Amino acid sequence: MDTIVRTVDYIKGKVVIIDQTLLPAEEKYVEIGDTAELAAAIRILKVRGAPALGVAAAHGILLELENEILAGQDDPHGYIFDHGDTAAAFDASGLDGAVITAKLLETADMLAATRPTAVNLFWAIERMRKAIKRSGNDISLLAANVSTEAFAIHDGELETDRRIGENGAALLSDGMVVLTHCNAGGLATAGYGTALAVIKTAHEQGNAISVFADETRPLLQGARLTAWEMTRAGIDVTVLCDNAAASLFAAGRIDAVVTGADRIVLNGDSANKIGTLGLAVLCEKYGVPMYIAAPWSTFDLTIENGSGIPIEERDPGEVKSFAGIKTAPDEAKAYNPAFDVTPAELLTAIITETCVIERPDVEKIRTAAREAGVLEPE
Amino acid sequence: MDTIVRTVDYIKGKVVIIDQTLLPAEEKYVEIGDTAELAAAIRILKVRGAPALGVAAAHGILLELENEILAGQDDPHGYIFDHGDTAAAFDASGLDGAVITAKLLETADMLAATRPTAVNLFWAIERMRKAIKRSGNDISLLAANVSTEAFAIHDGELETDRRIGENGAALLSDGMVVLTHCNAGGLATAGYGTALAVIKTAHEQGNAISVFADETRPLLQGARLTAWEMTRAGIDVTVLCDNAAASLFAAGRIDAVVTGADRIVLNGDSANKIGTLGLAVLCEKYGVPMYIAAPWSTFDLTIENGSGIPIEERDPGEVKSFAGIKTAPDEAKAYNPAFDVTPAELLTAIITETCVIERPDVEKIRTAAREAGVLEPE
Repeated sequence: MDTIVRTVDYIKGKVVIIDQTLLPAEEKYVEIGDTAELAAAIRILKVRGAPALGVAAAHGILLELENEILAGQDDPHGYIFDHGDTAAAFDASGLDGAVITAKLLETADMLAATRPTAVNLFWAIERMRKAIKRSGNDISLLAANVSTEAFAIHDGELETDRRIGENGAALLSDGMVVLTHCNAGGLATAGYGTALAVIKTAHEQGNAISVFADETRPLLQGARLTAWEMTRAGIDVTVLCDNAAASLFAAGRIDAVVTGADRIVLNGDSANKIGTLGLAVLCEKYGVPMYIAAPWSTFDLTIENGSGIPIEERDPGEVKSFAGIKTAPDEAKAYNPAFDVTPAELLTAIITETCVIERPDVEKIRTAAREAGVLEPE
Repeated sequence: MDTIVRTVDYIKGKVVIIDQTLLPAEEKYVEIGDTAELAAAIRILKVRGAPALGVAAAHGILLELENEILAGQDDPHGYIFDHGDTAAAFDASGLDGAVITAKLLETADMLAATRPTAVNLFWAIERMRKAIKRSGNDISLLAANVSTEAFAIHDGELETDRRIGENGAALLSDGMVVLTHCNAGGLATAGYGTALAVIKTAHEQGNAISVFADETRPLLQGARLTAWEMTRAGIDVTVLCDNAAASLFAAGRIDAVVTGADRIVLNGDSANKIGTLGLAVLCEKYGVPMYIAAPWSTFDLTIENGSGIPIEERDPGEVKSFAGIKTAPDEAKAYNPAFDVTPAELLTAIITETCVIERPDVEKIRTAAREAGVLEPE
């Protein structure tokens, strides 16, 4: 039984990801050696999930630095950076700190343009930008600061997952049936998950938790990824078509819904995978608690309410075909938003790594954010 | 622009269906020459949709009679029965009316066992049983009564579609955006539709109607069939994943929902394709009218409320794979009910061929059924 996934890492000079488009049929790890390839992997969702996107972008900027340094070496050895180790020695004499700084900031911009909704991506990139800028064009400082920051983001997110798991597990109890949507698991984060961390922790604490996993059209992250993570962790899981959830609620078979989020704004309105709003409406109708589990890196406190969240509209082909087989006539249009926004009033609580915010609103979120140190004191 | 579909018919001694599993890629008509083959086609949904199942079963019983008569002919010519024509002459001397009657009743039982939820199937079979029994084992009467009843059921359902279309179109107006689920179109009936008849009639009356078609997992009847019917009829159609509907409601983009039904019981509770209940809950939440369009042959007035409706649970493989590609791990279970039950209190109206029953309840349905002549007067 394995509850941790090697979703994205930085190993011996490469970004290594598990190719999520191939799961569950194949568990394949891909070494990515340049940032354009990483950006493409993000766009086609080989790596996806709000916190995982942040970690991947941080590693991507480190990868750019790795390649810039290696390009300046007379006799480049294998790699400079490796997760968990200090940087290898390198010859800085042929390197121009200002040029490399500019290249890293360009890479940051390029990675920030891959996907528009998940705010963790921008949060991680902003942390990396600061690490770059405080190095003052000094190559040795760049090497130290950029690698330290990338690994700090990664390790911090994994620790965050654990704390979300513990805070959320306190809301579940033995015998509960939990419905989740999309994949807010280890595959969406640094390895343990947000919504699925809550379930995994409750399970590890000895509670029998049964999971219903919405398949989550169009890309089936629930059927493919959540079901894979749950079976791997030894947790009972049943896959259903998204439209079958209502019948489970009506039959009283769901005790709680737990999902992740891609961006939570100041008043608690939360963008998450398309379909989350429908579940929140069902929770309200049938009196079932609706929980969102997300780290503070998912919060965007610069936006007042959900209407300000940009929603990614993806290719109609994702809806109109499957595995190359046409499933709708060419003449039909398709509506394919990747996310919807659940208004805060439909949320029972938001589970973060520092606290559980019950019935979230502007004041409660401001207070919790100040206590967590992510918002300046009044 | 074509609003009528040749869904199922009886032509020159064969049941002819359009193979709905191949749409929209291929428009293929299949000649079915024996009743076992027809039962298989019903089970794998080559022909589906509550009213269409009734018509197919009626034709199936006629097909059995055709084959029994032909088997008893010394020099059988091509066929006995053909839709629209009187029966061809045949030699009854070698035929045993009691044996053939028993065979026809056996066929009726066999076809009734193909699918459990759509009551139109049992309604049509019951009409055919009565036509068989009132022939008193007389071969000539059997030939006349069974063929007359089968074609009457078929023609009656097509006329019914037209009337449902007219009654429902009065509820729509120019510029409306209508969301529908699954396929309650000509492909689900004798050729024109129930929910889609409402849309087609409003369109034919000169109203600009835009349609959002839920793709309707797992078998994508919305994406494959409804979108095909709408584009064929020249009606603007946009396909969406079922879970994306909530975001359209929240954005105020849906003016009405119209679906079909597979069984409506005495208090108005209505079984329809899985996912209909979720739409009804969204309609309630966002103040959008929720209409069900169905003929009286879809009503089962022997059942008090929705808890008495048997719900077909289909193969988990429909959810866990697509076109032979595995989409969920083997160890995961699947929940795959074909239908859910929408309680009457979530329905704005039921549109029938005789009337529109607003805010349906037991008394309104009893009264309307008596006026329609489908329930005895008090």
